[in-house]
Amino acid sequence: MASITFRPDNLTVTANDGELLAVVAARAGLALRSDCGGQGACRKCAVRLASGELGGKEGGAAETRAVEGGVEVLACQTTIAGDAVITIPEANRAADLTPLAKTLGHVAETLAGQGVREPLAARRCLAIKPPAKGDSIADVDRIFDALRAADPRLRQLSADLPTLRALPTVLRQSDWSICTTIVDGLSASQLANVASACDIDRPVFGLAIDVGTSTIAASLVNLGTGRTVATGGKRNGQIRYGDDVISRIIWTEEHENGVETMRRTVVETLNEVIEEARRAVSLAPDDIIALTVAGNSTMMNFLLGIPSGPIRRDPHTPPASWLPLFTAGELGLNVWSRAPVMCLPTVSGFVGADITAGVLATGLAEARELVVLVDVGTNGEIVVGMDGMLVCASCSAGPAFEGVGIECGMHGAPGAIEGVAYDPATDEVTLEVIGHQRPQGVCGTGFIDILASLFEAGVVDRGARFSEDFETERLRLREHELEFVLAFAGEHGAARDLAISQSDIENLIRSKAAVHAGISTLLCKLHLEPEMIRRLYLAGAFGSHLDVRKAVQIGMLPDLPVERVEYVGNTSLAGAQLCLVSREAREKVRAIAAAMTYIELSVEPGFMEEYVGSMFLPHTQTERFPSVVRTPTV
Amino acid sequence: MASITFRPDNLTVTANDGELLAVVAARAGLALRSDCGGQGACRKCAVRLASGELGGKEGGAAETRAVEGGVEVLACQTTIAGDAVITIPEANRAADLTPLAKTLGHVAETLAGQGVREPLAARRCLAIKPPAKGDSIADVDRIFDALRAADPRLRQLSADLPTLRALPTVLRQSDWSICTTIVDGLSASQLANVASACDIDRPVFGLAIDVGTSTIAASLVNLGTGRTVATGGKRNGQIRYGDDVISRIIWTEEHENGVETMRRTVVETLNEVIEEARRAVSLAPDDIIALTVAGNSTMMNFLLGIPSGPIRRDPHTPPASWLPLFTAGELGLNVWSRAPVMCLPTVSGFVGADITAGVLATGLAEARELVVLVDVGTNGEIVVGMDGMLVCASCSAGPAFEGVGIECGMHGAPGAIEGVAYDPATDEVTLEVIGHQRPQGVCGTGFIDILASLFEAGVVDRGARFSEDFETERLRLREHELEFVLAFAGEHGAARDLAISQSDIENLIRSKAAVHAGISTLLCKLHLEPEMIRRLYLAGAFGSHLDVRKAVQIGMLPDLPVERVEYVGNTSLAGAQLCLVSREAREKVRAIAAAMTYIELSVEPGFMEEYVGSMFLPHTQTERFPSVVRTPTV
Repeated sequence: MASITFRPDNLTVTANDGELLAVVAARAGLALRSDCGGQGACRKCAVRLASGELGGKEGGAAETRAVEGGVEVLACQTTIAGDAVITIPEANRAADLTPLAKTLGHVAETLAGQGVREPLAARRCLAIKPPAKGDSIADVDRIFDALRAADPRLRQLSADLPTLRALPTVLRQSDWSICTTIVDGLSASQLANVASACDIDRPVFGLAIDVGTSTIAASLVNLGTGRTVATGGKRNGQIRYGDDVISRIIWTEEHENGVETMRRTVVETLNEVIEEARRAVSLAPDDIIALTVAGNSTMMNFLLGIPSGPIRRDPHTPPASWLPLFTAGELGLNVWSRAPVMCLPTVSGFVGADITAGVLATGLAEARELVVLVDVGTNGEIVVGMDGMLVCASCSAGPAFEGVGIECGMHGAPGAIEGVAYDPATDEVTLEVIGHQRPQGVCGTGFIDILASLFEAGVVDRGARFSEDFETERLRLREHELEFVLAFAGEHGAARDLAISQSDIENLIRSKAAVHAGISTLLCKLHLEPEMIRRLYLAGAFGSHLDVRKAVQIGMLPDLPVERVEYVGNTSLAGAQLCLVSREAREKVRAIAAAMTYIELSVEPGFMEEYVGSMFLPHTQTERFPSVVRTPTV
Repeated sequence: MASITFRPDNLTVTANDGELLAVVAARAGLALRSDCGGQGACRKCAVRLASGELGGKEGGAAETRAVEGGVEVLACQTTIAGDAVITIPEANRAADLTPLAKTLGHVAETLAGQGVREPLAARRCLAIKPPAKGDSIADVDRIFDALRAADPRLRQLSADLPTLRALPTVLRQSDWSICTTIVDGLSASQLANVASACDIDRPVFGLAIDVGTSTIAASLVNLGTGRTVATGGKRNGQIRYGDDVISRIIWTEEHENGVETMRRTVVETLNEVIEEARRAVSLAPDDIIALTVAGNSTMMNFLLGIPSGPIRRDPHTPPASWLPLFTAGELGLNVWSRAPVMCLPTVSGFVGADITAGVLATGLAEARELVVLVDVGTNGEIVVGMDGMLVCASCSAGPAFEGVGIECGMHGAPGAIEGVAYDPATDEVTLEVIGHQRPQGVCGTGFIDILASLFEAGVVDRGARFSEDFETERLRLREHELEFVLAFAGEHGAARDLAISQSDIENLIRSKAAVHAGISTLLCKLHLEPEMIRRLYLAGAFGSHLDVRKAVQIGMLPDLPVERVEYVGNTSLAGAQLCLVSREAREKVRAIAAAMTYIELSVEPGFMEEYVGSMFLPHTQTERFPSVVRTPTV
C-alpha cells in the first residue's frame, strides 16, 4: 500500500502499487482531463511529481519529462510504485461534472465555496483513550466522548447493533485507534461503523439521485471535498410499464405484486447507475456511504415499495409527505449496506421531492421579489416564491420533451440532437449533437429548437400544423401523416431518416401548452401578472444548452425579457446533492416542504381555457407575446 | 366472532365460538382460580352470566346453576356461543402472579394502582378523516393528526418502512377505521403497525424478562390493564458453558463463534420461556408487542451477540452502558417481529441492568435516609442510596444460593425445598416444598434455613465445619467427606437421599461471606455504619418465602432489626416490568444508571480481611452480631 498526496488540495489517499495514477486521482475526487481517452496523446492529464516514485504502465520506470522546476508525468500512463506527492496543475483538472446543465449561481457557490458541512454520513479517525484502573466507562461512551471532543456540533449519539457487536474487538485490535462512520440523522447522530483506522484511509463518497419518471440521474460526490467526481443517467427501466406515472400506477393495480415488480425494476436501474458511477472512478461498493434521493411522489413510492393508487384518484393523496432515513441494504441498493438513504420530502401527490429539491437548489424560499420555478419533466410543476410565500401546482405535461412517446425522441445522452436550425432559403438543417457523434435521436432542447425553427420558417402555422403548401423535400407524407425530415439517412452521418411527424408536434404542443397554462393559471389565482416575475428558473432534463429565447418563442414560457429567465438543468438532482453534503440543506428542505401550499389546477375554472389558448404558437392571444409575434408573413 | 365483556373491569374481547371461557378471560388479563386444574371440581372459576349465551364444553348448552341474582357457570367447563357479558367475583380471580416474591410496597402500587402509563408499545384504534376535495394531506399525516388528537402526550411521530408500505391499502380497505401500534421510543414515537380495526380487537401483552446467569424469569403483562397474567422461569441454557459469567466469557474466547453460540443458546431459552408464557394464556406470538430486558452486563451482551472479553479483564469495561431499542425480530425472539425490545441500562462491567432495574423497583433513588439494596444472584451487588447519592459495588458471590454447584441444588421451581427446620431433640427434619410436591432438591431459601438450623443445633460450628462428635444418623461420611442428610430416600417422599456436604456448606459460606464483606466494605468506604441503615432490601431468586431473620443469623446480612430488612424477590424483573408499562420508569432507569457511582471493591484494602472474617457463622467478630451469638453451648 502506498500513500499518495495530491497538491494543492493536500489530499492523501492509499493506493496499491501498479494502480493507474489517473484512477487514484479520480478516487480522491480530483479527476483529470482526458481528451484522448487515456491514450497518452493529448498530454491533458500531465501532473508534476513533487517527491517519491512512480512506475510505467507496462512496468519499469515512469516516462518523465523535465519541466520548469521539476518533472512531469502523464497520469494516464503512470502507475503507483510507492509513496509519492503529486501536484495537479489547475488547467489539467477536469471540470466538476456538475449536475446542473448550466451553473446555477448560488448552488455552485454552496457546493464549491462552502464545501462540505455536516454531510449525511462522514468518516472520522480517532484515537480513543483506553480504559485504565479507575476509568472503566463503557467502550461506546469512550468513542462518543472522543467524537464530541472532535466535533462539538454532533448531536445526541446512538449506535446500532452491528456496530455494538463489532466495537469491543475492533477497539482492542486496532490499539484504540479507530475510524468511525457517523450518520447525521434528523434529531440524533448514529455511530454506524467502527473499523481499524488503517482499513479506511481513503476518501468516501455519497451519491445524489434523481429518480425521474423517464430518466434516472445521479451525481457521485467526494464527501471529504464536496466535489462531484462523476455523473450518470439511465432511462428508468419502469418505462416498459408505462410512459407516465398514471399508467404505471394503473399497471401496478392490474398486476399481481405490481408494486413489488415496479420497485425491483427501479432498484435494478439504480444499481446500474450506481455501478457505472463506481466504475468511472474505481470505487468499491463500500466506498459509497450515503445516498440522497429526490423524485416525484410516485417514483419515490415505487422505490420504497409503497402502493401509489391513491395518487391517481381524486384528491390525489400521497402515502407520506416526509420519510425517515432508510439504509441502502433495506432498499436493495448496491452500496455500503448501512449507508443512510435520505428521501427528500414531498408536498402532495403531484408535487414531489423533485420540486422541494428544486426549491432548495434555486433558493426560492429566500426570494424577496416574485421568483418562479418551472420544472418540466414527465409532469410540469410550477412553484411561485415571494417573501417566504411558496405556492405550487402541477400540470400534466407528459414526457414528450424527455423524448418519450416521440419516434425520434431520446434523452440527453451522446448522440442526441440538442440544437436544430432550419434555413428555408437553403433548405438545410444544421444539427448540434451531444458528444459530436452521429445523430441518433432528438432530446428536449432539440425539440424546442425544431418547434421554434419550423414556426419561424413558416413550415408550421400558428395552429402548429404543417403548411401543406410549404415547398421542401423534407416535408413528406408517411402513413397518411406529414412529417419533416431533420436528417435523411447519410446526412450528418445519420444511420436512418430522422423525422418529426404531425403527431409528434401535437404531442410537444400539448406538453408546452400544459406548462404555459399552468404558469398562467397559478399566477392568475394568486392575482399576479407574468410581468411581475423577476426571475424564472426553468428546470428539467432538456439537454445541456437550452436556448431560453426559443422556449419563449414557442410559448412554453411567458414572454419575459430573456435575462430574467435562466435554464438551471436538473434542480432535483442539485437539491439532492446539497442534502448529501449539508445538514442545513437537509433541515431547509423539510421546512420548504412544510411551507409549500399546493393548488389543484384542474379544478381552477380558467385552466382549461388557458390550456386551449396555449395550444397555439405561441398562443391565441398574440398580444401576450409581443417579442415573438411579428406581422404574419402571409 | 363473539364479543365478551367482563365485569366489573368492563373489558371487552373478541372470542371465537367454542373457545373456553377460562381461556378468553385469561387473554383479557383476568385469570381465574383453578385449584382443580380445570376439572370442573373445585368451582373456584365460577362466574356469573349477566347476559348472552354460553355453551357446554362438549357442545350443547352450558351447565348453569341458579345463584342469588342470576346464574353461575364454571369458566373451565363453559364455551363461547355468541356475545355475552360475564361478571367475575373478586374471590374467584387468580391473584396477580407478581414477579416479586413478597409484595414490595410501592412497586405493587405502581403496577396495580397507577396502572399503565404510556407503555413501551400500545394499540390504539382510530377513525381517520378520509381525504376529500381540497384536503389531500398525506395518509400518514392523517394518522399522526388523529393520534395526536387522541393523545396529546405523544411525542414526535415517525413510521417505519413496513408500515408505510401497508398503510395506503389498509386505510382504504378498512374504510379509514384502523388499529395502530405505537412504540414509545426514547425521543420519538414510532407508528409500527397499521391494521384494520376489526383484526385486533383483543388485548395485547408485553413481556418483562430478567436474564440471570443461572435463571431466566419472565412476566407476561396485559398492556391494557397492567396486570401480570403469567410468570415463568427456566434455567439459562448457557449454564452448560460455565456456572458464572467469567467462565462463560472464557468459553466464548476459547471457541470459534463462541459469542454467537452463547447468543443462540440464551435466545433458545428465552423462546422456551416465551412459549410457556404464551401457552399459559393461549396467546399467538403477535399478541406480545413489547419486551423489556434486564440482566447483568455479560448476560445482556450475550443476548445481543456482543463480545464480553473486556468485562473479565481489569478494569472490567463493558461495551455499552445504554442500549438503543431493538426489535424482537432483530434479536430472534418469537413474539411479534416488530415488537420493541428495551434493554435496561448498565452501570459497569459488574453492575448491570439487573441492578438499575432493582434501584428503580425499590425506589432507592428517592431515599432520604440510608437505604441499601443487596441483590444476590450469581454475583452479589450492593447499592447504597441516600439523598440522591447512589453508590454501587459488586462482589463475586457465586451461584451457590441459586442452587448451582451444589449437588442437591435447584432453582425455586415446584419440588424445591424452600424451608428446612432441624430438631436435634427428635432428629427430625421438617421440609417445606414448593407446590407441596415430593422434594427434588433445595433452593436458596432452603439453604439459608439449613445453615441457620445446623448452626443453631450445633451440627456445624462457627467455622462452618461439621462437628464430628454430633450424634445423629443424618451425619455420615461419603467419599471421604461428611454430609448431612435432609431426607433419606422415601422420607417425605424423596426419591433419593437429599444431603448437603461439607463442600456444599463451604460453597454457601463463601457466597454469604462475599455478600457480607461487600456490604461492610462499601459502607466503610463511604464512612457509614451498618446501624445507620434504615432499610435493607434483599433481592434475589432465593425462593418465595425467605426468612430474613435467618439471613442475618448466618451472617449474610448485617445484624439489623428484622423490621428494617425486607426480602423483595426478583427486583430485576420488577424493574423491567415497570419499564414495560411506564414511560416515567423508562426515563427514570436511565437517570439512575447515569447517577450511579461504581466502586471497585477488589482494590479496597479492607475487603479481603472482611471476607475472611465473614467466612465464619455469623462472623469472627461476634460483637457485630449481638442478636445472633449466644454463649457457646460447649
